[in-house]
Amino acid sequence: MSPSDPHKESPEHLDRVTVAELDAVLGEPFPVLDHGFIRVIDYMGSDASIVQAARVSYGTGTRSVSDDSALIRYLLRHSHTTPFEMCEIKLHVKLPIFVARQWIRHRTANVNEYSGRYSIIDNEYYVPSAEAIAAQSDVNRQGRGESLAGGMATEVQVLIRADAERSYANYETLLGGKGGHEESGIARELARIGLGVNFYTQWYWKIDLHNLLHFLKLRADAHAQHEIRQYANVLLRVVQAWVPITYQAFLDYQLNGVSLSSQAFAVLKKRLAGAQVDFESSGLGRREWDELNALLEKRP
Amino acid sequence: MSPSDPHKESPEHLDRVTVAELDAVLGEPFPVLDHGFIRVIDYMGSDASIVQAARVSYGTGTRSVSDDSALIRYLLRHSHTTPFEMCEIKLHVKLPIFVARQWIRHRTANVNEYSGRYSIIDNEYYVPSAEAIAAQSDVNRQGRGESLAGGMATEVQVLIRADAERSYANYETLLGGKGGHEESGIARELARIGLGVNFYTQWYWKIDLHNLLHFLKLRADAHAQHEIRQYANVLLRVVQAWVPITYQAFLDYQLNGVSLSSQAFAVLKKRLAGAQVDFESSGLGRREWDELNALLEKRP
Amino acid sequence: MSPSDPHKESPEHLDRVTVAELDAVLGEPFPVLDHGFIRVIDYMGSDASIVQAARVSYGTGTRSVSDDSALIRYLLRHSHTTPFEMCEIKLHVKLPIFVARQWIRHRTANVNEYSGRYSIIDNEYYVPSAEAIAAQSDVNRQGRGESLAGGMATEVQVLIRADAERSYANYETLLGGKGGHEESGIARELARIGLGVNFYTQWYWKIDLHNLLHFLKLRADAHAQHEIRQYANVLLRVVQAWVPITYQAFLDYQLNGVSLSSQAFAVLKKRLAGAQVDFESSGLGRREWDELNALLEKRP
Amino acid sequence: MSPSDPHKESPEHLDRVTVAELDAVLGEPFPVLDHGFIRVIDYMGSDASIVQAARVSYGTGTRSVSDDSALIRYLLRHSHTTPFEMCEIKLHVKLPIFVARQWIRHRTANVNEYSGRYSIIDNEYYVPSAEAIAAQSDVNRQGRGESLAGGMATEVQVLIRADAERSYANYETLLGGKGGHEESGIARELARIGLGVNFYTQWYWKIDLHNLLHFLKLRADAHAQHEIRQYANVLLRVVQAWVPITYQAFLDYQLNGVSLSSQAFAVLKKRLAGAQVDFESSGLGRREWDELNALLEKRP
Repeated sequence: MSPSDPHKESPEHLDRVTVAELDAVLGEPFPVLDHGFIRVIDYMGSDASIVQAARVSYGTGTRSVSDDSALIRYLLRHSHTTPFEMCEIKLHVKLPIFVARQWIRHRTANVNEYSGRYSIIDNEYYVPSAEAIAAQSDVNRQGRGESLAGGMATEVQVLIRADAERSYANYETLLGGKGGHEESGIARELARIGLGVNFYTQWYWKIDLHNLLHFLKLRADAHAQHEIRQYANVLLRVVQAWVPITYQAFLDYQLNGVSLSSQAFAVLKKRLAGAQVDFESSGLGRREWDELNALLEKRP
Repeated sequence: MSPSDPHKESPEHLDRVTVAELDAVLGEPFPVLDHGFIRVIDYMGSDASIVQAARVSYGTGTRSVSDDSALIRYLLRHSHTTPFEMCEIKLHVKLPIFVARQWIRHRTANVNEYSGRYSIIDNEYYVPSAEAIAAQSDVNRQGRGESLAGGMATEVQVLIRADAERSYANYETLLGGKGGHEESGIARELARIGLGVNFYTQWYWKIDLHNLLHFLKLRADAHAQHEIRQYANVLLRVVQAWVPITYQAFLDYQLNGVSLSSQAFAVLKKRLAGAQVDFESSGLGRREWDELNALLEKRP
Repeated sequence: MSPSDPHKESPEHLDRVTVAELDAVLGEPFPVLDHGFIRVIDYMGSDASIVQAARVSYGTGTRSVSDDSALIRYLLRHSHTTPFEMCEIKLHVKLPIFVARQWIRHRTANVNEYSGRYSIIDNEYYVPSAEAIAAQSDVNRQGRGESLAGGMATEVQVLIRADAERSYANYETLLGGKGGHEESGIARELARIGLGVNFYTQWYWKIDLHNLLHFLKLRADAHAQHEIRQYANVLLRVVQAWVPITYQAFLDYQLNGVSLSSQAFAVLKKRLAGAQVDFESSGLGRREWDELNALLEKRP
Repeated sequence: MSPSDPHKESPEHLDRVTVAELDAVLGEPFPVLDHGFIRVIDYMGSDASIVQAARVSYGTGTRSVSDDSALIRYLLRHSHTTPFEMCEIKLHVKLPIFVARQWIRHRTANVNEYSGRYSIIDNEYYVPSAEAIAAQSDVNRQGRGESLAGGMATEVQVLIRADAERSYANYETLLGGKGGHEESGIARELARIGLGVNFYTQWYWKIDLHNLLHFLKLRADAHAQHEIRQYANVLLRVVQAWVPITYQAFLDYQLNGVSLSSQAFAVLKKRLAGAQVDFESSGLGRREWDELNALLEKRP
């Protein structure tokens, strides 16, 4: 394949963009939960690729932004998201089915999942740690979670483990014995229907950086379920290694940034001008009013 | 909201496109499996909308196609898929989790699923019928499925049912009792992780007709798992009621149509010209050769 | 097609969701620019459909939100966007090619465009009004736009009109005369390549409400080009007629809402606590600092 | 970033997948039309990545397919498309606006286009060669194209060139002179609206291999416009260098493969069984009948 005269020098020749920090950990499993992991398999692009794409699209306007960091921060601040789509990452992830079900809602991604129709599922399932049990119950019960961390957490673990062991034993029975015996067993795709959603599955998952950041905004958030947040936290470290400037801008503008309605912002402006504003005069609904006050009281 | 002079007649005024056959069954549940259903909630467009969109895009070329049926068949034959995207349908579906996991792979759709994080899951789970057990094992074991339909099918059902009942009882225990008792139970999102993938979930699912046909091509196919095919079969009837001309063209060109490689088509041409072609002279791989012969021998 | 016993009553039967305000204007052209328009062809769903979908997904948590308006505002505030995807709208739009090129960047939509390959393009092109010329130059030149509104605007219009007339005359020549004469002309798809991007095209465009709001956030914004904003402004009125509660929430949270980085919000909190914060102590970049001050000084 | 004990060996460490054939031409422009080009900027994956993803998803079933080529051919034959999504490519393309408008219809891709709002457009436009003019007119006029290739082609070129030069001169006038003079000119975004759709634009375009093959199936087809086919032809060579096994399978199954309706296939089967089938007894529409006969008569 020769694009032009082979005798001619090729001043335009490019090398692929690489990120040494990410190359160093390619293929290595970052452990998550009791049996899960995330492995980075491949990637395309870097902070520099975002800058390059932005200068194409936004032209001389962005050229006045003198350095890469200021430009990337400008892009995120103004929702100029297409340059972030020019970076792509491919991961190998092992995760419980109930986490996979939340994860797959992010549709703009490519997925190849291990198939329980064709292959035998391993006897690996998620049992929450005492901390995880307490943490999630805490949210439910406003502070009474801690008392749970002792004896009851153990009981919960015993129950979940017994359930999983029993249903896996039944799975093997339905398959006609360990490894599957076709004469006496039923089809794999049917035998597995009694396994719990805490059993592990695996997939290859490929996504562009813009959509990955959107995933992280939702899944690294305090409202996400504890388990998927553990995956999101590892992914934050992956993003930091891969595109450190974008990572910092993402933290500042999106993950830790604040969105206010025009009414809520008006309340702040009145207060800055010295006026007293209470709930009645704020024009806000009760829930938004409470959320605004929580934001203002939060320690940075 | 007045688009123009209110005193002026509006000869352009449109009424919404309706399809009486589909209106007649709006909201009514079509049963699927032991506890599932599909309900049509709303829709947009009809066969006529496809024709209208095609005439805009393909212009006078398509105007020479005298009737709607010939035009719709032409569009499907030539993969002119965008006019089919002008129709949209919204469904309410109740389905086992393992079916939902196959279904959600179709990404170009809108989904709102019932949440096990916030709501209590009902004690409803799928137990395959004796026929389903035999059918799926049959595929696995080339004809020995029937012998299974008797005693062993019952054993399988008993095992699956016992597993589900036990894990649901544990779910209630983890919740702190029926209905959930916050003082003694753990969070809903955590309590449900031992429930099997045969438990039912529900969702609203909205998709355009082009992507629905693609779903049906894959999920009404003999290679799809028995359970999702039952849903696909109901959806075929929905499509037939909604867009009957498109439905027939879809059957003829896609579901029952045949795709051949250039080599396989060359084999047919040689044979039609009277030549003998065997595996060695065909230029096909073994597997494709077998598939071609299976197609030729299949009764229509 | 009978989903169940035809003799049985059907208490579940649904009627399609309709919105009288939108039905009243279906098919009528809302004029935009000198020759363009937007017509609503069909739609699916209403504010009530969003509420219904949200209650399915977010369960009893959202049931505590007593009324529809508070729930819809909550969804938009917390980026729970999937319920808005349950509404869909289909439009017929006539627009200049350069506007179409900006519009089509919004990929999550269905499009059937009038084809210049197969059909003859009408002699209709966009000539900006004196106001539009002044407005856009104004941005460029910080206030010196007004002086342009007089004589030069007329010159600009004359130049643009002459260009369009000349290239359309050439188009007809290349076609072999008015209407196209196949003996002497060249192919339509080739004859049209000299026509300017201000010539009008038409398309059917179908999109869900979530993606439409995203379109409007970008295209009804002050940074969007004047011409596409005229379309966005008409679409805002369409959204207001269709889903009035969502429309108001969209204005408050998105179009007129404010997004602040964690650093910018920290500046506001310090000031509210009585501290002086200047550029040096703010931790903000110069451009973000200026943007924050502009927000604070802006009249509501 | 250390995924595990830094003292421990990392047997899992991966190197990125590379394709020497593609690395050799990275960044070099492949010329297309009179001023256009395609440059490969970066890529992810190879034929081996597709095989790896397939074995994850389709499990032991696919492991029985002994070699990579047979597996990839099997995947394409059965529309198992997700493994092809695991490969990604990023291109820099320079192309006339009317080609860009056809290209952008392929929505599942990432795009950053050069902006005529912010940057000055170069004086580069497409003028079709005599061959292109003849080729396209040929289609229109069933064989009378050749006579056009002489004098009239030159006339066509002169007309198109004159049109472009005149509208570019007007563009410069509207800008206030070469390079733009803000005091006397109008905004760039407005000045450019008279430029023809044969002016060149540029973009970065990133797409996964599955969607690229779909693009090529439509745009390397005889029904695609001549100009976009020239780009598709270059892309075919890029795909061949990148994923040679997939390339060959794509040619055999998709680009040169044949899709037949169930009725058309039944006609072939009857003929193979020795029966005479004419139009009346075929059950096909006239147009499909003619298309079938054209396929059968076509030289391979």
